[in-house]
Amino acid sequence: MSNPAVQDFYPEDFAHCRGCGRLNAHGHQFKTRRDGNETVTHYTPAPHEMSVPGFVYGGLIAALIDCHAMATASAAALLAGGHEIGAAPSPRFVTASLKVDFLKPTPLGVELVARGRIQERSDRKAIVEVSVSADGAVTAKGDVIAVPMPASMIRG
Amino acid sequence: MSNPAVQDFYPEDFAHCRGCGRLNAHGHQFKTRRDGNETVTHYTPAPHEMSVPGFVYGGLIAALIDCHAMATASAAALLAGGHEIGAAPSPRFVTASLKVDFLKPTPLGVELVARGRIQERSDRKAIVEVSVSADGAVTAKGDVIAVPMPASMIRG
Repeated sequence: MSNPAVQDFYPEDFAHCRGCGRLNAHGHQFKTRRDGNETVTHYTPAPHEMSVPGFVYGGLIAALIDCHAMATASAAALLAGGHEIGAAPSPRFVTASLKVDFLKPTPLGVELVARGRIQERSDRKAIVEVSVSADGAVTAKGDVIAVPMPASMIRG
Repeated sequence: MSNPAVQDFYPEDFAHCRGCGRLNAHGHQFKTRRDGNETVTHYTPAPHEMSVPGFVYGGLIAALIDCHAMATASAAALLAGGHEIGAAPSPRFVTASLKVDFLKPTPLGVELVARGRIQERSDRKAIVEVSVSADGAVTAKGDVIAVPMPASMIRG
């Protein structure tokens, strides 16, 4: 696999996310890959993912930024451990804080491109910056704090 | 109608929102009502709206906070104009900025209660604070900036 997706290597028990779980049949199944020092997710929203006719629902954009940031934190943790994506299970992060600035309306009917970059990371958290573009223009920006999944979310 | 929902009075052309549009058959159809000085939305997520088994997807929580905040801004604008909800079309707001702090994992399988309160408002924008509770505990908080829908989003 030349450029594997982070989400394809989440442990099976944690691969049901509505946004990016490969095992959620009703999900968006976002796929995040490395692109140099950045990460990238391409996604074309379904027609019903609208805010008003012609424009993408902000909740979908927030979801894309959220899952993309968690995958970016996961990829960075892998890399810090000396692994490429796919060479070991992708560690699962959860969102402590999500901020989205909607810069302009996002047109519906074209592919969205989310790009992520690590601003800061430690073993305890990662701060991820995300941009979302449509038709070559950035329409939303996200600042996200990711933390490793807490033990309280792991059900036996 | 004793306690009408803001979204039931959005103009028909702007009632297709994935989160709260009454005309979006694939949407959540969130309904926001007044509760004294606050607004409230009750919503029980579908089983597939999960992050990991047992817990609600953060993107759904962000979407709930987003739509709830827009409806809260709409209700406040109505009130400022001397109208109760349902006595005039609900004005449509869009999100300039959305910040969500996830305080603890949100259990899946119970009703979520979003509560909103206006922090500040003018004719140009409203700042709305939202809390989301499950089983009586607040699991997420939102700070949202709403602005009246710009003319560029209105397609003839």
